[in-house]
Order: sequence, then structure tokens, then C-alpha cells
Amino acid sequence: MALWAVIMAGGSGTRFWPASRVARPKQLLPLAEPNRSLLASTVARLHPLVPAERIVVVTAAKLADATRDELPDVPSENVLAEPAPRNTAPCIGWASRVIGARDPDSTIAVLPSDHHVADAAGFRAAIEKAAAASQHRAIVTIGIKPTRPDTGYGYIEVGAKIDGDASEVVRFVEKPDLARAKEFVASGRFLWNGGMFFFRAQHMDRAIQAHMPGLAADLDRMCTGRASDVENIFPELESKSIDYGVIEPTSKENGKLAVVAGDFGWSDVGSWESAWELAHKDESGNALPEGAVAVDARGNLARTSSKKVVALVGVNDLVVVETEDALLVMPRSRAQDVRAVVDALKSSGKTDKI
Amino acid sequence: MALWAVIMAGGSGTRFWPASRVARPKQLLPLAEPNRSLLASTVARLHPLVPAERIVVVTAAKLADATRDELPDVPSENVLAEPAPRNTAPCIGWASRVIGARDPDSTIAVLPSDHHVADAAGFRAAIEKAAAASQHRAIVTIGIKPTRPDTGYGYIEVGAKIDGDASEVVRFVEKPDLARAKEFVASGRFLWNGGMFFFRAQHMDRAIQAHMPGLAADLDRMCTGRASDVENIFPELESKSIDYGVIEPTSKENGKLAVVAGDFGWSDVGSWESAWELAHKDESGNALPEGAVAVDARGNLARTSSKKVVALVGVNDLVVVETEDALLVMPRSRAQDVRAVVDALKSSGKTDKI
Repeated sequence: MALWAVIMAGGSGTRFWPASRVARPKQLLPLAEPNRSLLASTVARLHPLVPAERIVVVTAAKLADATRDELPDVPSENVLAEPAPRNTAPCIGWASRVIGARDPDSTIAVLPSDHHVADAAGFRAAIEKAAAASQHRAIVTIGIKPTRPDTGYGYIEVGAKIDGDASEVVRFVEKPDLARAKEFVASGRFLWNGGMFFFRAQHMDRAIQAHMPGLAADLDRMCTGRASDVENIFPELESKSIDYGVIEPTSKENGKLAVVAGDFGWSDVGSWESAWELAHKDESGNALPEGAVAVDARGNLARTSSKKVVALVGVNDLVVVETEDALLVMPRSRAQDVRAVVDALKSSGKTDKI
Repeated sequence: MALWAVIMAGGSGTRFWPASRVARPKQLLPLAEPNRSLLASTVARLHPLVPAERIVVVTAAKLADATRDELPDVPSENVLAEPAPRNTAPCIGWASRVIGARDPDSTIAVLPSDHHVADAAGFRAAIEKAAAASQHRAIVTIGIKPTRPDTGYGYIEVGAKIDGDASEVVRFVEKPDLARAKEFVASGRFLWNGGMFFFRAQHMDRAIQAHMPGLAADLDRMCTGRASDVENIFPELESKSIDYGVIEPTSKENGKLAVVAGDFGWSDVGSWESAWELAHKDESGNALPEGAVAVDARGNLARTSSKKVVALVGVNDLVVVETEDALLVMPRSRAQDVRAVVDALKSSGKTDKI
């Protein structure tokens, strides 16, 4: 079994406005490491476990060029461009077919493109365990050991050990409230759902066949016809997440779904607050561009798109982000409210700014 | 007596960094009115009392072109360029000689170039009173009715009424501490020193002759020789302020100095805090560029040099100033600390940023 990776890089979000834009979403930004996008880091941390030739990146058609530019080592034909967004089930189904056609005995790791991992070796070790476990299961996921009762993540309840490093999945729980999140963490039985899935290409084909037969039929048509059929058929595929379409029904079949626990300094880089947490900071807790001047200022994150000198005087815990056409100032604690700005720009017709 | 004005526009300060720069100091910036510099407003508010032909502007040689560009109605030869900064006594002495040579019977109003006046008609009325009073006095000043115990201003203690609207000056007091400033304001006997002086050209010549005879002799040489003598002689003139060199000694001669009270919405526009006070603000107390987005943000001043969209989320009472090569964020209450930034830039050798 050769291990392949499918990196889902079609995301477009507003949480990193104004740095992230429709044409330059989060995964293409250097939010965790200097001068390297989250996507490029995702590919780099797979080395040498999964070589670039066995990495398939699925992205939106309008991001395909930028994605290929960002990943010079990944073969151009390995970047799959979705003609329209159809959620994750069609994305993963398509990628599995493409890989299965090239390497019928392949095992596939599906990974998000916009997360950060501090311990890449630990990450690869967890992937190896999950890939091994997936040989005898339909689908294996990696659950991340929670470090705090975060209400922004999904949780996985872990059941009995089954074999090796894998355990049964009791259930998936969507973002809980704080009280439940605290219970979950205290119990020691819950892991964060990091959105990583491992399976043999053949197993995924079978699971889609079983739980989304319409999608399976459409993929048959799309992947056996002419290349241009993707243009015509993909936009018509059933838009559903892999979680609801395949994982959840699979979890109801005893023993088919397994989870491997991982602990490798994971972050979903969910907001400017996360970017500050991950950034290299000076002794005052400031993460500032080179040459910045901080006078009696602590805990700030500042970014500019230019060689501009940034000066902060007497301000604490702020996020200051300047791009070519926008400037954002807010407390780090309000990072979730960036979307209110994007909404305001949208409703005032300034769509060129978002 | 024709009334002339001398506008002192050689200032260079750091309090409006990063908008103010060595090559573009405060008086050339639109800090109080949209799209009009403080200097241009100063000239405009003299109309029709003092026409542009009778306005002389003294500035630094390196600012002469920018100053002429800013004041298209003022004749080019009325902009006097100091080859080197020599404080206000040489500046006023020179301008008086230039005006006296053209109009020996002239009366002169010396005015700062970088203050704001809300009530221009009231300002002109006060000037007329001061100019009238100066016919029988050596020097007349306008004292501004204080509205708060400001420790940033000089104060004038007002004595007995002498004639018309003028009163004796008991003494000048430099920036007092808060307790004294409160006393001054409570007493009703003190006015703010707004740095405005009124005199007949002949009187100023005589006062300089009496109190700064060296300067008087040098001005004789400079103003009767060839034009290029300014280049050679001006840099050698005695560097002293008009206050210490002429006003203070004059104040010791009974009845020679007088003060006229004025109340016309004056501000010295001393810091970004003042700029916020003077700015047009929305119902949340924000003074922001057009198209800005404010979410749960109050009392902020923001300026950009570009068409950038500014977004403020959850921040209050901040100053945010962005120029082509710098970005400043600080609380309005820390406006005086801008100089710490300029000092830091200076000591790290970034003189191109100041």
C-alpha cells in the first residue's frame, strides 16, 4: 500500500480579513510560519512520508493557478480544480477516484490545507498509525488530544481499544457549549476532530457506493468519460460534507470507523488570535514586522503588506493588519468579529474589498 | 495705517508624526479642516481684513516651494525663506523691515501658521482691536479667554484697563502646573498666550534697536545690501525668541505692552488629541475616513494617505494614522508620546521616516 495524501485547499473564509481575500484565502497566507503559507507548510510536513508526487491538492478553479504557484514540487496534474464548490464528499470522492485509477492499492490521507502543526515528526508518526489502522477499517480519523475546553471544535468520543493504536468511535459531537466542553476534556474520553481521514481508495469507493449511491454513479460517469466531463458533471454532484454523507453512516456500522489519538501541537489557525499565539513574539509579547517601534505596548500582533514602519504606543493586545487596500484595528479578543466588517463591506457594496 | 500680516510658518515638529515630516510639517497638513492646511486656513481667515498682497509668510528655505504652492494667492515675493532657523526675533525683525520698506506707515499682525480658529469673524474683530490699540503702544498681544486649566499653554496676567479694549500686561507665565493653572482660570485675570503680536513696523524697529541692538545692526546690513546678503547674513543673526529678546524687556517699560482679550474658538492644534477634538465626528465620536467601517468602536481618530478602507472593531479612543511609509496606533491620551517614536526612529538611524 502506497500512502497518498489529498489536501483539501478549496476553502475561502473571512476570518483573516483583510489579509485573506476571495482570491487569496487563508491557506495561501503565511499565518503560522514566516514566509511560508499554511498550504506550503502542509505539503512540507508530509515529507518524507508522502512525497510530492503522491500529493493531490483539490482546490477551486479560480485558485488553481495560485495553488500551483505555491507548490512548485507538486506535479501540476495533481492539483485538481473544482469547477464549482460542492462540499467535501464530491471533493474526496473525486480525488479517491483519480488516485485509485493511478494506484488501485493506494491508501489515502485526507488533510486540511490550513491548519498548523508544531511537531511535524509526531504528526507523521500519527499518520503512519492511522494509515496502518485503515487497512482493516473502512475509515480512520486522527483525534487530537484537547489542551483546553475549546467550544470552537468538534469532539470525538473514544470507545474501546480495537487493535494497535486504534480505538472505536462512540460518536462525533459538534461544537459543544463551554460546560459540555469542560466535561469532555475532564473525562479524558474525548478528542478534537481535526478533519483528517484515512482510508484505502477501494474502501472509500465502497463507502460512497453504500451511502451516497447517486454520487457514486455520477463519479463513474465523470471519471470514465472525457476529461472535459469534469466541467459538466462536477457542478451537478450532490453537495454534501463527507462527515454527513459518509462518516456518520459508516460510524453506525460496528467496527468500521476507528480513531487514532494524536498529540503534535495542532492548531486550526482559526483567527488572528491564533495567528498571534503561533507567531514568534518579542519579550513584550508583540509579534511585529521588522523595524517596528513599540513604546509601552504589549501583546500586539501587527502585519503590513509593505515596508511601512509600524509604531505602537501604549496599546495592548491589539491586532493591526494593513494590506494594500485595507487597514484593520481590533483587540485580539474580538478576532471573531472580523466577519462583522466583511458583512458591512458586503452590504455597502464594497465587494472589491472582501 | 495699512494692516499687514506676518505669518510664521517655519515650524517643524514631531507631534503629528507620521503625517508630519521634516519636509511636510504641521502647518502644511489639513489637521483641522478637511482638505485645507492650517496655513491655508490662516491666510483665508484674514480675508477680507488683510488681503493676500499684504500677507508676508516667513518659512524655512527648504519649505519655501511647498509654502508657495499652498498659498497661490500670496505673491511669491511675499514668502520669505530663512536660510537657517534663527528663532522668532530675527524672523519678525526681517519681516518688519521688508514690510516697512514697502509701506513705512504699516501696522503688522504677527500670527502663527499652525493654529485653528473656529470663529473667523470674531478673530478678525479681535485683530482690528489689537491693531487699533497698537497705534499708541509699542506692542499689543491678543490673550485668549481660557476654557480649561490647560498646562500646555503660556498665560498672560491682565492688569488695569488702559484704553478702548486694551489692558496692561502684568506678566507672562510659562506653562504652569495644574494647581496654578486652575488658580489662573478661576481668578478670571489670566488669558492664554496665543503667540500673536501687533505693532507698527516703526515701533518694532525701535524696540529691536533698544533691546537687541546687535540684531538691529545686522538687519541694517542685511536689508540695505544686495538680495544675496540674506544668504550670508541671516544665518549669523542672533538666535533668540521675540518673547525673550523683545517682549519681556518691553513689558518692563510701563504702558508699552498691552493685551486685548479674544474669544474665538482658538486651538493651537497641539497633538493628535486636538486634531480629534477639532474633527467632524459621527454619532459615536469617531472621526474616520470616508467609507470606514466601525463596529462597536467609539471616540477614534483615523487617517490614511490612501483610499484604503479602515475597519475598527471594538476599539475606543485610539489614534490610527497611516501614511505611505508609516503606521501609528496609540490611545488619544498618549498623543504626547509620539515623540518617543520619533526618538526611537532617530536613534535607530531611520531618519528617512521622520
